[in-house]
Amino acid sequence: MTICFLSQNKLAANGKIKLEKKKCVQFNMLHMILFIVGTSPSGAHLQPWMFVVIQDKDIKSLIRQIVEDEEHLNYQKRMGVQWVNDLKQLKTSWQKPYIETAPYLILVFEQVYGTRTDGSKQNHYYSRISTSIACGILLTALQNVGLCTVTSTPLNAGPAIRKLVERPSNEKLLLLLPIGYPADNAMVPVLQRKPLNDIMIVI
Amino acid sequence: MTICFLSQNKLAANGKIKLEKKKCVQFNMLHMILFIVGTSPSGAHLQPWMFVVIQDKDIKSLIRQIVEDEEHLNYQKRMGVQWVNDLKQLKTSWQKPYIETAPYLILVFEQVYGTRTDGSKQNHYYSRISTSIACGILLTALQNVGLCTVTSTPLNAGPAIRKLVERPSNEKLLLLLPIGYPADNAMVPVLQRKPLNDIMIVI
Ligand SMILES: Cc1cc2nc3c(=O)[nH]c(=O)nc-3n(C[C@H](O)[C@H](O)[C@H](O)COP(=O)(O)O)c2cc1C
Ligand SMILES: Cc1cc2nc3c(=O)[nH]c(=O)nc-3n(C[C@H](O)[C@H](O)[C@H](O)COP(=O)(O)O)c2cc1C
Repeated sequence: MTICFLSQNKLAANGKIKLEKKKCVQFNMLHMILFIVGTSPSGAHLQPWMFVVIQDKDIKSLIRQIVEDEEHLNYQKRMGVQWVNDLKQLKTSWQKPYIETAPYLILVFEQVYGTRTDGSKQNHYYSRISTSIACGILLTALQNVGLCTVTSTPLNAGPAIRKLVERPSNEKLLLLLPIGYPADNAMVPVLQRKPLNDIMIVI
Repeated sequence: MTICFLSQNKLAANGKIKLEKKKCVQFNMLHMILFIVGTSPSGAHLQPWMFVVIQDKDIKSLIRQIVEDEEHLNYQKRMGVQWVNDLKQLKTSWQKPYIETAPYLILVFEQVYGTRTDGSKQNHYYSRISTSIACGILLTALQNVGLCTVTSTPLNAGPAIRKLVERPSNEKLLLLLPIGYPADNAMVPVLQRKPLNDIMIVI
């Protein structure tokens, strides 16, 4: 087992660290990875997810602008002093240069409901949990091929991004994942993880 | 990449398929796996999860009873005709023999909030998504060592199970995972997955 996320996922979070285009990400790899992610389990087998891969430079710029506009307000007003304080050790800010420098973005949408063949509405039981589990499998697959990302949740930017990429209103933006290889000078914060005893109990 | 969940996760769902104790699950393996799961990313690095591993036979029986009592009502009344219909192809029912036959259960709890060192309440941002992502990584790790499970969400049984295993009220039962090797005669339903085109779009 080589799965270890320790100090991997923050590679893109710090403004100074860039996901460079230098080392090219094979496009086919994303197809393979998302094919695998599509085999994730889901409540009642409803597969309530959609992955929108962005490679277009202009769309990336527009997404960055949407996210930064919202994040500016989030950090200034919406999140409150406590939340902003809780993020201090991670050195995140409203600035998200990685949205433009990453070779790809994966926008993960949760389909809150679907449509049956007869046109009626199909409730997607546990769509949030199912899609998040699929994202855990996606992160593992990315890690397995040496790619890195940061699992970002662009607060309040979901609806505008959804409209920009023309997705229907049954879909909610769950995560925005910039995908790339770490830059040569990439640095990650040293974070203390809970010891196993604090997260595992045996009865 | 060998991650493929296709027709794996339902191994335990069908009453006829048992996770047998015959092939012994190495207990240390669960420690290793959960150590790795503990490296999952989380909102503001708050690690809002707790994994309770059940090996005690009597506790398993009590959990089965709690789950079956609730599931009986769920299938009869609470879920409604449509939901029960949506599950027909999966051949699930209110009966959960695998809860007793599986060598281990992992109860995954989401910590909705935590406590700071000064005793004050710490909000856990995105605890549901973070814990579900960790579960995706857990499923991958289980799969990598040849174990199987079914990602079950015991509707309405959470509070009673939480009390039985004496977990505090900031924790919510997210998933119940029976862990074991497939029985020799294990069979899984043949399910049609969405083609890649239906879950991936490139812009
Ligand atoms: C969030 C979630 C909740 C689920 N809840 C249950 C459940 O309560 N009982 C059950 O038997 N299976 C449950 N499942 C398992 C699904 O029934 C199973 O994954 C689905 O049938 C698809 O089969 P597959 O995983 O082989 O694709 C759940 C799966 C997910 C992801
Ligand atoms: C559900 C979830 C939401 C997150 N949201 C953001 C975010 O909006 N912006 C960001 O920079 N990082 C975000 N992160 C990444 C965390 O900041 C990062 O995982 C955390 O700092 C822990 O670092 P580690 O992943 O290296 O352990 C999120 C992570 C998770 C799991």
